[in-house]
Amino acid sequence: MVVEAKGEAGTSSERKRQSVLAAATETFMQSGFLGANMDEIAAASGVSKQTVYKNFGSKEALFIEVVTAMMSEADLKVHTAPAEPDDTAELESYLFNYAYRQLSVALTPTLMQLRRLVIGELSRFPDLARILYERGPQRAITVLSGVFERLEAKGLIECPDATLAATTFNWLFMAEPVNRAMLLGDAGLPTDAKMRQISGEAVRVFLKTYGAEDT
Amino acid sequence: MVVEAKGEAGTSSERKRQSVLAAATETFMQSGFLGANMDEIAAASGVSKQTVYKNFGSKEALFIEVVTAMMSEADLKVHTAPAEPDDTAELESYLFNYAYRQLSVALTPTLMQLRRLVIGELSRFPDLARILYERGPQRAITVLSGVFERLEAKGLIECPDATLAATTFNWLFMAEPVNRAMLLGDAGLPTDAKMRQISGEAVRVFLKTYGAEDT
Repeated sequence: MVVEAKGEAGTSSERKRQSVLAAATETFMQSGFLGANMDEIAAASGVSKQTVYKNFGSKEALFIEVVTAMMSEADLKVHTAPAEPDDTAELESYLFNYAYRQLSVALTPTLMQLRRLVIGELSRFPDLARILYERGPQRAITVLSGVFERLEAKGLIECPDATLAATTFNWLFMAEPVNRAMLLGDAGLPTDAKMRQISGEAVRVFLKTYGAEDT
Repeated sequence: MVVEAKGEAGTSSERKRQSVLAAATETFMQSGFLGANMDEIAAASGVSKQTVYKNFGSKEALFIEVVTAMMSEADLKVHTAPAEPDDTAELESYLFNYAYRQLSVALTPTLMQLRRLVIGELSRFPDLARILYERGPQRAITVLSGVFERLEAKGLIECPDATLAATTFNWLFMAEPVNRAMLLGDAGLPTDAKMRQISGEAVRVFLKTYGAEDT
């Protein structure tokens, strides 16, 4: 199967790899794993099917490569580390910005489609869904839980169980829009104004529960 | 395509229909829409492929029938209407039971697999996902919002926007376990003890925010 014409290797090989990856991303996002066709991917990337197999081994391996590349990109965008607040006056806007940034990065048509695809392929690719879980919600909650421990040490929130508080806050703003988008598609994605409203309400509920003073 | 042997109609036809539906449910849940094979479904239900097509028209129509049947069944189980509380003493246990009942019905391997399947097939069957949204989260929130309006009228909660409060409460207990199960499969489903813990925490956060007294 891995028969390759001479002269395809060398400096152009990384370019070919990237071109296959881009075409594969589009094809998998549109057609799903089973529906995607390796001939189509080869044609769209302008290389031979042999070159696709030579670079990625199999349709499964190519799919895994596509998914991990997309997740790494999103991860870099969400987990910036803005300065943490030192007093109660800054707390609310810090939490608001945290929620709003995560919503803005996560709720894109492409990432929602990736999530749908991985969920739909859970029985075939359980490891892929696990990676998405670990790099998505689990990572968000771990990062946030560290933030909450420091905010409690500064006396800004009252939070005996930082992981529980982080889980609650994360889902207070993520749950409704993510689950709506899963089932209603791009038409279900929130507008910018809606994302601000959701973030504000999540902060209000969180501070009612965890605020050091009864805010 | 719709060629049918004589003698298959009559009293046995409803039994055959149910038998095809049961086999189709199992096959679609295991293999997904594209992966499911009509020959397999026919063989598992002990009828000819022609009989399958005669009863359901197409693979698409059969899939829609399977999904709507499963949703109707779950809907009946969730939306019982227990007596609503008349005083603050009963409020907490009412909310706890509400959350716990919904978690117990929704978080089964079969319904989670249905949800995965429908999410994975969103681009092919947007109407199916819309039905799941309307009969799932949207219906839960509408019912709950009616409850909260009555609880506010009785002075048991302070809730100027009943739909917002219902959305918050619904996702306070549903979000984490549903999204974990979507990505981690049956191994990610909560134990009974965990469902009770999640329900209790959701009620605590809800009452901190919406309780008439500062509970």
